[in-house]
Amino acid sequence: MDLREEALKLHLDNHGKMEIRCKVPLKDGHDLAVAYTPGVAEPCKEIKAHPEMAFEYTCRGNMVGICTDGTRVLGLGSIGADAAMPVMEGKAVLFKSFGDVDAVPVCINEPDPDKFIAIVKSLEPTFAGINLEDISSPKCYDIEDKLKEIMNIPVFHDDQHGTAIAAVSAVLGALRFVKKDIKTAKIIMNGCGAAGSAIGRLLVSMGAENLIMIDRGGSLYEGCDWGRPLDRIQAALAKTTNKNKLKGSLKDLAVGADVLMGASAPGVFTEEIIKSMAPGSVVFALANPVPEAMYDYAKAAGATVAGTGRSDAPNQVNNVNVFPGVFRGAIDVRAREINDAMKIAATYAIANLIDEKDLREDYVVPGAFDKRVAPAVAAAVAKAAIETGVARKIVDPEEVRKNTEARLAALK
Amino acid sequence: MDLREEALKLHLDNHGKMEIRCKVPLKDGHDLAVAYTPGVAEPCKEIKAHPEMAFEYTCRGNMVGICTDGTRVLGLGSIGADAAMPVMEGKAVLFKSFGDVDAVPVCINEPDPDKFIAIVKSLEPTFAGINLEDISSPKCYDIEDKLKEIMNIPVFHDDQHGTAIAAVSAVLGALRFVKKDIKTAKIIMNGCGAAGSAIGRLLVSMGAENLIMIDRGGSLYEGCDWGRPLDRIQAALAKTTNKNKLKGSLKDLAVGADVLMGASAPGVFTEEIIKSMAPGSVVFALANPVPEAMYDYAKAAGATVAGTGRSDAPNQVNNVNVFPGVFRGAIDVRAREINDAMKIAATYAIANLIDEKDLREDYVVPGAFDKRVAPAVAAAVAKAAIETGVARKIVDPEEVRKNTEARLAALK
Repeated sequence: MDLREEALKLHLDNHGKMEIRCKVPLKDGHDLAVAYTPGVAEPCKEIKAHPEMAFEYTCRGNMVGICTDGTRVLGLGSIGADAAMPVMEGKAVLFKSFGDVDAVPVCINEPDPDKFIAIVKSLEPTFAGINLEDISSPKCYDIEDKLKEIMNIPVFHDDQHGTAIAAVSAVLGALRFVKKDIKTAKIIMNGCGAAGSAIGRLLVSMGAENLIMIDRGGSLYEGCDWGRPLDRIQAALAKTTNKNKLKGSLKDLAVGADVLMGASAPGVFTEEIIKSMAPGSVVFALANPVPEAMYDYAKAAGATVAGTGRSDAPNQVNNVNVFPGVFRGAIDVRAREINDAMKIAATYAIANLIDEKDLREDYVVPGAFDKRVAPAVAAAVAKAAIETGVARKIVDPEEVRKNTEARLAALK
Repeated sequence: MDLREEALKLHLDNHGKMEIRCKVPLKDGHDLAVAYTPGVAEPCKEIKAHPEMAFEYTCRGNMVGICTDGTRVLGLGSIGADAAMPVMEGKAVLFKSFGDVDAVPVCINEPDPDKFIAIVKSLEPTFAGINLEDISSPKCYDIEDKLKEIMNIPVFHDDQHGTAIAAVSAVLGALRFVKKDIKTAKIIMNGCGAAGSAIGRLLVSMGAENLIMIDRGGSLYEGCDWGRPLDRIQAALAKTTNKNKLKGSLKDLAVGADVLMGASAPGVFTEEIIKSMAPGSVVFALANPVPEAMYDYAKAAGATVAGTGRSDAPNQVNNVNVFPGVFRGAIDVRAREINDAMKIAATYAIANLIDEKDLREDYVVPGAFDKRVAPAVAAAVAKAAIETGVARKIVDPEEVRKNTEARLAALK
């Protein structure tokens, strides 16, 4: 049975991947009276008087809505909110298994961004946080920014920021191994879609001063002409990257690069391009499922460290290292938002998880099943939330780490 | 510890009552590749090609959205969507425990009915059915009717129809005991709010020909003057009940009645009123938590059969006998809607569950923990759905019953 058949069989045999589970006893009339009427009126009244107590008295405090309009699902395009469900449900079980976050699919059949925003906003009483998923760019930018502005719970577009944190933490791990500095390394980021742009923004916010973004139109710089308008995220990146306004193709610009990243198209990182990089070169090729350069290809072409999004090769860049811990930490301190400081903290937490003595060229990224990741990310995110004043509940980050470990250990 | 303290402690200690559970293995990279990327693309593509397969490949097929705007929560009034969460979550765990239906709270902060309708409609790709809950009347009527019209999945306002099915099934059980016929029995229904009106409508649809509805304005009949306009449900009931246009107070009209029902206010069924009923009288007093007449009071006043909504007295009228089985049956045959025939079938399924030889004056309603109820209701609802042509998947009702029994037996 190939993977395709196996995937269909798994989904069909189980009728999906998640279910609801009751956490309280419901064995007799007394149990019903406590958990439902008339007892349930008491937490209702408490929440009416103290709205923040909803996070303590109900599942809301651990509940994330995975919201999509189905306009850009995996690499399948705009397949619609119905067909997006398997991905949302998959995300939900990853949230639970890797972060003990209760998350539910919210597939919204509303392509209009303003209406989509109003719908997600209206669901705020149900959730502790919103994970936006598989929404096409550029509308995903406006949707996320507007929701962040009007909602009082964290809103996080995982395709942008989860991917960026995973990718940049891998780059940081690789730079630790080759002993280079993110501030000065020459970094080429090929692809300025939602994922590539988010990687670029995160690199800039972490101090990368020698970053060149490239898209089909060529390199990005202030005043560049791609033959089409830049979206507003690209326009902002044009001001903060490639200050020397270097022009040319990917092949031209990769010469002497320390880091080459791709969120673009299969196979575009040729042997020639990789060979032209500086010694101690780092190549992360994130196009899925076929990367810009397969791991073995990049290594054979001379990359010192290589990685992809694939689980069948070393140094996998995988959002599952990110979103469970990020939300775990954010909701444990009841953060109002997930800000840049929290994203940077998550990135360093992952990048620094592997001990110096354990770092190897094929092990610069912790694996998806490394049980240290989510607790470390949660603690770092909680700490950054507290330090930047967006936490509404102060919990010692070390407690957050231990609680996360305990939660994951207790999962069945 | 009194019930109030116990309820608060239960909710606080457990941080609510429900959680998500993963149904598939996620122990290694292969598991991830099958349940998430890249394998998950396969069910997405299948659903894109065959939208109805979403019900087979994902949790959607067993997922009900419990949707509220928080405008009428229990007897607490319009406490808002935030404070409604404990009730919605309670409902969700009852759905699971009594019907193995996966249901999630959807607390929507949108009091405008048209916008609320658009929001719920947009969530259709997420759910197999919609349970409306705790929405004030009369807007609950328009919301339900409009959603039934525009959605392709069942929409069911439990406060109306769940209550009506539970109440009328209890009346039918009582009439079996006293050997009277619903068609000819003189039935007084005191209270024409959402619950009372739904009871009235169900009684009419089941053939009750001698039904008088009463509200604060007096008895209901075509042309009656309540000093305020009738809502459209009341106006419709005015045409189908009390055809003799009997006027007078509750006290006047209850004289010689066979059945007296209340969905009104505490204590209004006085000893004098109950005493004035016909021999073999049946009194169901459903005001919560304090009924129109407590069980012992009604019995002492001469009622042959009495019942309330309370769990501390016999013959409890409880929606938990209804909604889990109704949705179980409806979604097992993928019904397009929950129509009158399905409601009537559910009512008889509950009413006829107790064997003739077991019927007693204090046992005309199966208890909430009677494991026969949900399977019987599910089978009856599925059968009626198939017979009325609203089922999109034909399953032998006996299979539905056995599957429901097996599902409930397998719950942990």
